[in-house]
Amino acid sequence: MPEEEAARRQMLSKIASAFELCGFAPLSTPAIEYYEILAGKAGEEGDKLLYRFRDHGHREVALRYDLTVPLARVVAQHRDLLRPFKRYQIGTVWRAEKPAHGRFREFVQCDADIVGASSSVADAECIFAGILALEHLGISRFQIRIGHRGILNALLKQAGIRDEAEQIEVLRTLDKADKVGFEQVTAWLLDLVGEERARTLTQSLLSIRSLKELEALKGEEPEGVEHLTSLFDALLALGVPSDRFRLDLTIARGLDYYTGTVFETTLLDLPEVGSVMSGGRYDGLLTMFGEPNVPAVGLSIGVDRLFSALVELGLLPQVQVGPKAIACPADGAGLKVCLALVSDLRRLGVPCEVVPEPSWRLKKQLQYASRRKARFAIIVGEREAEASKVVLRDLESGSQETVSVSQVHEIVKRE
Amino acid sequence: MPEEEAARRQMLSKIASAFELCGFAPLSTPAIEYYEILAGKAGEEGDKLLYRFRDHGHREVALRYDLTVPLARVVAQHRDLLRPFKRYQIGTVWRAEKPAHGRFREFVQCDADIVGASSSVADAECIFAGILALEHLGISRFQIRIGHRGILNALLKQAGIRDEAEQIEVLRTLDKADKVGFEQVTAWLLDLVGEERARTLTQSLLSIRSLKELEALKGEEPEGVEHLTSLFDALLALGVPSDRFRLDLTIARGLDYYTGTVFETTLLDLPEVGSVMSGGRYDGLLTMFGEPNVPAVGLSIGVDRLFSALVELGLLPQVQVGPKAIACPADGAGLKVCLALVSDLRRLGVPCEVVPEPSWRLKKQLQYASRRKARFAIIVGEREAEASKVVLRDLESGSQETVSVSQVHEIVKRE
Repeated sequence: MPEEEAARRQMLSKIASAFELCGFAPLSTPAIEYYEILAGKAGEEGDKLLYRFRDHGHREVALRYDLTVPLARVVAQHRDLLRPFKRYQIGTVWRAEKPAHGRFREFVQCDADIVGASSSVADAECIFAGILALEHLGISRFQIRIGHRGILNALLKQAGIRDEAEQIEVLRTLDKADKVGFEQVTAWLLDLVGEERARTLTQSLLSIRSLKELEALKGEEPEGVEHLTSLFDALLALGVPSDRFRLDLTIARGLDYYTGTVFETTLLDLPEVGSVMSGGRYDGLLTMFGEPNVPAVGLSIGVDRLFSALVELGLLPQVQVGPKAIACPADGAGLKVCLALVSDLRRLGVPCEVVPEPSWRLKKQLQYASRRKARFAIIVGEREAEASKVVLRDLESGSQETVSVSQVHEIVKRE
Repeated sequence: MPEEEAARRQMLSKIASAFELCGFAPLSTPAIEYYEILAGKAGEEGDKLLYRFRDHGHREVALRYDLTVPLARVVAQHRDLLRPFKRYQIGTVWRAEKPAHGRFREFVQCDADIVGASSSVADAECIFAGILALEHLGISRFQIRIGHRGILNALLKQAGIRDEAEQIEVLRTLDKADKVGFEQVTAWLLDLVGEERARTLTQSLLSIRSLKELEALKGEEPEGVEHLTSLFDALLALGVPSDRFRLDLTIARGLDYYTGTVFETTLLDLPEVGSVMSGGRYDGLLTMFGEPNVPAVGLSIGVDRLFSALVELGLLPQVQVGPKAIACPADGAGLKVCLALVSDLRRLGVPCEVVPEPSWRLKKQLQYASRRKARFAIIVGEREAEASKVVLRDLESGSQETVSVSQVHEIVKRE
């Protein structure tokens, strides 16, 4: 509905401006991609999420389920693009889950990615862009939990979970912690890999909570430890307060393509909504498009979730969606003046309109004007038209006065 | 690509602001609708244009092919909406034609509609919103051709074309005039309805070119003639110059749901691109959703077509998409200063970034900065870091100077 949509548009434009401040440029890609482009990039479960059909040239196509795979396709296709390539995209994505109440699984995502950079500075810049976006929206109480797929894999192996299919199952189970809590996850892990291995794993995941504790893993996964350490340094150098982010090795992120850094963001006053800003490093994705050795990192804001959170936190500014003034013609002579008036007011930058059904009685016109929450009704009949005057009614105070046309311009623009 | 996308976003925001000035509020609807909602609304040919598939609840769904039918669905579903309901929507629509070169028939449309008003003032307000949008984009040389479905039907009958299927074929043929020219259309009509009826029809269509000539039809179609006459009066009263619009009874508009006023807009300097802004009255559409007697009128801007036209007319402003400044760290000590610097500059509103791959040699970093078309490179190494200075290089002039951090803030923000 209009009020909500206006507020959403304002939210999106604040996010876009934060991303632009961080050097990301806008990109847009089609909603429909060839099925083979999207298939297999986020594992079997990802494929199940595709809305899939045939185009009129009988090729299999699908609606994108994220903005990352299409980005990888674009970069692989356009080899002339300057790398590292920094882009942001705001777009709808579709996930074919069971629809409820006639609502389809249609979401808007806001992504910022850097393709072609392996440094932890690139990770930090993506995360910073997300932080700036949240700040632009008035959110200050949040915490980013940062983990690492490489380190997580090392811990899996250390716990004796070496079978790949088993590893994937464990990662998927960990990924549900946000929804069901870590206790439930622990119980599931017990069933999945047995008590001993589950205990070893959860113990190391939960006990390593600082960079200092992470040092112990330098032998197992030196690259990962070094990457996270320099990422934390970069975030601090960017001026991010140290309580805004922390190490959390339990973060798995469901999508198969993540390889290094992974992160999720909790709103401290609304932890139950889940992560509002997530992402990570996916150094292998471009390889699937025939471009090996193209590291990439990105961040995604779940707009719908964030919007609900803003509503709940009372951080959504009231946006005036209707016209400021509505011209109400009392008769045919008044109509002409009304039309000329709104034309002038619009050129002065004042949102306004003539009542769309001028044959209505004046009373009904005024009711319409106040239900549209206009500040002013401008009433003109033959008598006013002849005297080059109008009746200006302030719908907030209920007061009205007869003024000249140029006075209307002035008052309506000013108030 | 980013430069184009940035320019497109600017174009869309200018259109949106024109619509808001005219009292239209934003609305958004899902891209996917139930098939039964979309089917049958734009005739058989419309149905063929649908990308159709099943959701995971096994219901038939389809991608919207315009923004009008979903609007009608929303208004019919939400009976509490204040009517007349004025909304605009900017959204992607899909038309399943044979895709060429991996491009799908995916378009962006910008629509402004008034649902629940029958007056010609409502028609005029929609058209005015479109005119204001074109003006905001710097386009002044265009002409809106306005016809009327009711009058067209009366002329068909007058010419002896009374069979409904035949009438539909004639309307479809007329609708191709834009692409193939009216001579070709006349030839097709000859084949379709025979020489005598075709001649009678085309003669009346082409000879009635002014409101005065239209008067002759007052006996046949009084409502239509009166509606167009008062629409023209309203446009003039809104200050639209009289050469910006004219009567053209050949306008048919392909989509089945139009009932009254129909219009198309030609760019005088680029007539070959076809209509960039079209629409009309569709008083019967809501009836299909069980809501009889809900008149409606709307306008649609074909964004992709308009964008190409703006490019060709040289009316597209150059948009800076990259960062204004890129910080280039010469070493680890420099990196910290660079990160702190971009953080500060962003809070001052300056788009900037640290080179995403800081391990690069300085020369490569500077190449990256100039290829991104940044105005400034800010170079910091250990020596500068210790002296609390940076080297500021103007990439336009090639000159550089060593300045303090606060001077960088000032210079980069100002230039």
